[in-house]
Amino acid sequence: MPKKTIISMAVIKRLPKYYRYLGELLRNDVERISSKELADRIGFTASQIRQDLNNFGDFGQQGYGYNVRFLYEEIGKILGLTRTYNTVIVGAGNIGQAIANYTNFEKLGFHLKGIFDRNPKLIGISIRDIVIQDVDNLENFLKNNHIDIGIICVPKEQAQKIADIFVRCGVKGIWNFAPTDLSVPEDVIVENVHLSESLLTLSYRLNEAELFKGKTGR
Amino acid sequence: MPKKTIISMAVIKRLPKYYRYLGELLRNDVERISSKELADRIGFTASQIRQDLNNFGDFGQQGYGYNVRFLYEEIGKILGLTRTYNTVIVGAGNIGQAIANYTNFEKLGFHLKGIFDRNPKLIGISIRDIVIQDVDNLENFLKNNHIDIGIICVPKEQAQKIADIFVRCGVKGIWNFAPTDLSVPEDVIVENVHLSESLLTLSYRLNEAELFKGKTGR
Repeated sequence: MPKKTIISMAVIKRLPKYYRYLGELLRNDVERISSKELADRIGFTASQIRQDLNNFGDFGQQGYGYNVRFLYEEIGKILGLTRTYNTVIVGAGNIGQAIANYTNFEKLGFHLKGIFDRNPKLIGISIRDIVIQDVDNLENFLKNNHIDIGIICVPKEQAQKIADIFVRCGVKGIWNFAPTDLSVPEDVIVENVHLSESLLTLSYRLNEAELFKGKTGR
Repeated sequence: MPKKTIISMAVIKRLPKYYRYLGELLRNDVERISSKELADRIGFTASQIRQDLNNFGDFGQQGYGYNVRFLYEEIGKILGLTRTYNTVIVGAGNIGQAIANYTNFEKLGFHLKGIFDRNPKLIGISIRDIVIQDVDNLENFLKNNHIDIGIICVPKEQAQKIADIFVRCGVKGIWNFAPTDLSVPEDVIVENVHLSESLLTLSYRLNEAELFKGKTGR
């Protein structure tokens, strides 16, 4: 069981990466690994790894390292992967379809239960056996199906309206791909994927690297 | 001009958000704004905003606040948006197509010059007047066209191979959507969008919120 201490968002954001690397080690039949070896693969320092994992309990053993399967399963528990999550996607454009087709999410326990759009050309088409429904049915659907996570892939102008429907119908998690910040009550959790912010971070870093190169004459 | 101090990645990651909010203010003809008002909109504290922006120079004026257009343009410069970037997308599946269709990137100065895939069903099809080419042409294309940013939207098994081609051909920025970490030389900048890590962060936070709710009996 995780200790109930306050874990910083920076640590939380690193956990899925640990989970991914440990999963790869498991598939390669690696049974145990030192924080040093894990550090070499994952690109964090060994002391960072020990510090991160200490937040959640005493996983490592001095001189033995980490038991890969145990650590993988424990991080899975911490990440909430011992249960499943029902999801719906609203907005069946390219991003919505990409998410709908990404079967890896199913393997992690995220089950897609419905896809909604307002475009008559898309309504009625199936993605992975799920028929795209009219977004006018969303509220009714949410009342009749327990949905844990609502995924917003509509243009930014419509995003808040969809978020309001989710909130009204008791959906507690929102994965937001619209390039806008949503306003929701405190007990609803929003995780944003803002693609232009990621691209602008890249252009900043590129630009910075070139300024630096110019300065040092390299 | 930005001062050449070392800016933390946390600050850099917030800049695109400032840029987005300031752009919206400009479109609404707002001429100036205090750090307090900006804080109310953007959801950071006023002191955080002042501290972040002080990294790059003295933008604010006591008692006047920030000149919105000036701040917008200065942050644009810092983000490297006074120039344009040529990009190519490799992998024309759903994510690749979503990125290709996202015209907002063009407005920011990111010009898509080529799309590549290995699927014969996709080769020859056009997205926004750009014909999808055989990925076998990628290296040749990169030798004949100056490309600043390579966008990787292929499955993880092929991602490193594509990154190696980018590196070999002098592409200095990589925007990576494949769920794997790329190994590149120091002077190449990689910005990752790892969707499952974002989804697992959401499930962690949902799970945590529910544990907490259980504990306090709310």
